[in-house]
Amino acid sequence: MAASHHFIRAHKIHFSECDPAGIVFYPQYFVLFNDLVETWIDALLPEGYHGVIGARRIGMPTVHLEADFSAVSRMGDRVTLSLDVARLGGKSLTLAWACTGDDGIVRMAATQTIVTTSLDTHRSVEIPDDLREAIEAAMRG
Amino acid sequence: MAASHHFIRAHKIHFSECDPAGIVFYPQYFVLFNDLVETWIDALLPEGYHGVIGARRIGMPTVHLEADFSAVSRMGDRVTLSLDVARLGGKSLTLAWACTGDDGIVRMAATQTIVTTSLDTHRSVEIPDDLREAIEAAMRG
Amino acid sequence: MAASHHFIRAHKIHFSECDPAGIVFYPQYFVLFNDLVETWIDALLPEGYHGVIGARRIGMPTVHLEADFSAVSRMGDRVTLSLDVARLGGKSLTLAWACTGDDGIVRMAATQTIVTTSLDTHRSVEIPDDLREAIEAAMRG
Amino acid sequence: MAASHHFIRAHKIHFSECDPAGIVFYPQYFVLFNDLVETWIDALLPEGYHGVIGARRIGMPTVHLEADFSAVSRMGDRVTLSLDVARLGGKSLTLAWACTGDDGIVRMAATQTIVTTSLDTHRSVEIPDDLREAIEAAMRG
Repeated sequence: MAASHHFIRAHKIHFSECDPAGIVFYPQYFVLFNDLVETWIDALLPEGYHGVIGARRIGMPTVHLEADFSAVSRMGDRVTLSLDVARLGGKSLTLAWACTGDDGIVRMAATQTIVTTSLDTHRSVEIPDDLREAIEAAMRG
Repeated sequence: MAASHHFIRAHKIHFSECDPAGIVFYPQYFVLFNDLVETWIDALLPEGYHGVIGARRIGMPTVHLEADFSAVSRMGDRVTLSLDVARLGGKSLTLAWACTGDDGIVRMAATQTIVTTSLDTHRSVEIPDDLREAIEAAMRG
Repeated sequence: MAASHHFIRAHKIHFSECDPAGIVFYPQYFVLFNDLVETWIDALLPEGYHGVIGARRIGMPTVHLEADFSAVSRMGDRVTLSLDVARLGGKSLTLAWACTGDDGIVRMAATQTIVTTSLDTHRSVEIPDDLREAIEAAMRG
Repeated sequence: MAASHHFIRAHKIHFSECDPAGIVFYPQYFVLFNDLVETWIDALLPEGYHGVIGARRIGMPTVHLEADFSAVSRMGDRVTLSLDVARLGGKSLTLAWACTGDDGIVRMAATQTIVTTSLDTHRSVEIPDDLREAIEAAMRG
């Protein structure tokens, strides 16, 4: 049975996110979703993303990314940014994102594989127990 | 009598806004406040900032900027971004911004002078009447 | 026989490109490679990338992207950014990029599919003849 | 007698640096000049800016900034970025920057005051002797 965790945030496309064509400069999507992942971790753990990175010295770098850009997002567009957990492994997890307009049209969708690492060695480590449990609880809905 | 318009937004400092020292990379403050100015115009005019820029082809470039950075903002800090109208001229306006921590400490404060321009000629034009009236109404409180 | 066009630029990882972990913030790679694609088009066409975008109103948005991040790039690292043409279609092309350290270790590699579009309609158009010819000439080496 | 140190780099305005008006998004100037200051320190000290920040744990945050934007820089423009030392203090220095087009027109000019700090305490510290000597030597010309 599929997990149904679905974390979303409304967003309005800012001038600062757009390029000379008046549409989202595509690297900016990755900044938006990095902020979304951060907001998601903040919602899962009391100490927040910055606590994991800062105090615990555990990094969450991206190791694989696939993205499709199917429609443009223009300055001022109201969109929904969504995040789903596609896979929860031992030292990594795969997230599925989408940016969907208020018109229901998906503008971009991506999958991102994140590894948990030690920020001292940059080597992978087990996903911390409390983070895993919080993700599993969220996935159970 | 002093105008008392004071537009504020809560913000949490994101990982994406920070540098290798773990504090806000200072150019990022200008992105945050550009987004705040945009949100302020969105609140003043139904068509929003993107409507002014896009449909009307009126730009709002910065011509002068002064900023003091008095305390660092760290990843995860909860701050308040504020905007006040310091001066409303014919073709320009001066805004005063501040980024203040939940501890009450001002991290940075700045004044920004914006000119309204034609995006076709990049020359200054009068501030549009409806925008001026909306700003004046906001300043009356 | 495989085409051997290989466009490269040396780059030093800047402080501004790094995150609180002291390594390249991954969306920043896409900015670096967007600049590389631009520099490549500048080398192929006298009017440059900005001429294609600006005067001709032809956009070159990304429609598909796949990236693997296999090793970190630290602030100050000297790297080589490379670009190869993997496929040249009628209205799209696929580029292969890599960021390789002076130690020979590939830090990230990606494929990017770009479509040529009208910036007025955001619909795909044929790759302009002169750009196609310049790419084909480069691919012949 | 005025010091005549003048550090310059040629730059072409990239698509990634421009906004929906097709001109440099002003916060991007601060990124460009942060990279220029870094390149300047790299030229002064063998270990480079990243060595000062990374190994020595000395930060160089900006505490004051004043900027005038007098003409627009468009996508594709060739400009010169320059840096002069306006003042060399005990724990701080003031730099003067300018971005000048190939047409000789100054697009923006700024002064930036930088403080040297401990990255552990974020408190100001003396400018390191070797950096001071290298700056003084550069100022003597």
